[in-house]
Amino acid sequence: MAVESMTDVRDDALRLLSNGLYVLTTVLDGMIHAAAVSWITQASFQPPLVLIALRTNSRLAQAVQKSRRFALNILGADQEALAEHFLTHLTLPADALDLAGHDYRLTQGRCPLVTEALGWLECRVAAEPPTPGDHALILAEVTGAGIRRPGQPLVLWRTRWSYGGLRD
Amino acid sequence: MAVESMTDVRDDALRLLSNGLYVLTTVLDGMIHAAAVSWITQASFQPPLVLIALRTNSRLAQAVQKSRRFALNILGADQEALAEHFLTHLTLPADALDLAGHDYRLTQGRCPLVTEALGWLECRVAAEPPTPGDHALILAEVTGAGIRRPGQPLVLWRTRWSYGGLRD
Repeated sequence: MAVESMTDVRDDALRLLSNGLYVLTTVLDGMIHAAAVSWITQASFQPPLVLIALRTNSRLAQAVQKSRRFALNILGADQEALAEHFLTHLTLPADALDLAGHDYRLTQGRCPLVTEALGWLECRVAAEPPTPGDHALILAEVTGAGIRRPGQPLVLWRTRWSYGGLRD
Repeated sequence: MAVESMTDVRDDALRLLSNGLYVLTTVLDGMIHAAAVSWITQASFQPPLVLIALRTNSRLAQAVQKSRRFALNILGADQEALAEHFLTHLTLPADALDLAGHDYRLTQGRCPLVTEALGWLECRVAAEPPTPGDHALILAEVTGAGIRRPGQPLVLWRTRWSYGGLRD
């Protein structure tokens, strides 16, 4: 009989925190970067801020820290298949015709928006709070937003994935 | 015909970010403080950190900033009625028999756990990152955790509330 350790219980309990699943996109040095992200919360009404935790020194964190702008594509509850195309970091030329087969357009700030997404936020990095953790914190002001269609957003715990690995 | 302003679109898009609904509890100076909170995300695996945004200078933020310890009671999808009892900040003597009619017990760190909740995290404040926003950021290490029963967690956008007011 398997005995569940305190660490297992803690990790299982942490997976009960509700997070969405988003496709973060940014453009740096003529290249589009795109990847699925989940550790995000709103962090202020005025100014409107979101806080994102990205693995320290990951290509995505580095791209966002340098470009200072990014878009969050908010996926619908029916878009797990789309999300799967972004589970690994994509790097593409800025004139790519599509993102992993998905149409996109650029915001005024030149952040790629996946046109099939439920909605989007365009953000500008406002601060990078220090942290003792293994993920960089990005505090970003929401500078643009849109909703494309009605629908419910995709919640990570409803998918077969969890951040850090496939759900077992 | 109502014309939707950019601010309305932005606020609607921000409400598509998925957050859970939790009951935060802490004890300070012989008083239990308890209130529903939503702007939370995990922010590190090692050490295990969560980040919480609490309205600056709110009684809850002040209590957490002084007590340095708190519990997050993770509610189940069927516990909207329980959540409703904590939508306004509760302050009770530390020897209260119940929390708004709900049984509780104390963690070793003396944080109240609502026994009906799906699970819980006990946290110790690790840092208070500066922010230009209207919510204080609390970065906290997870020092204890438990799951009480199987079930899905409560997601804020599935309720009739949104943070900041009743959903219209």
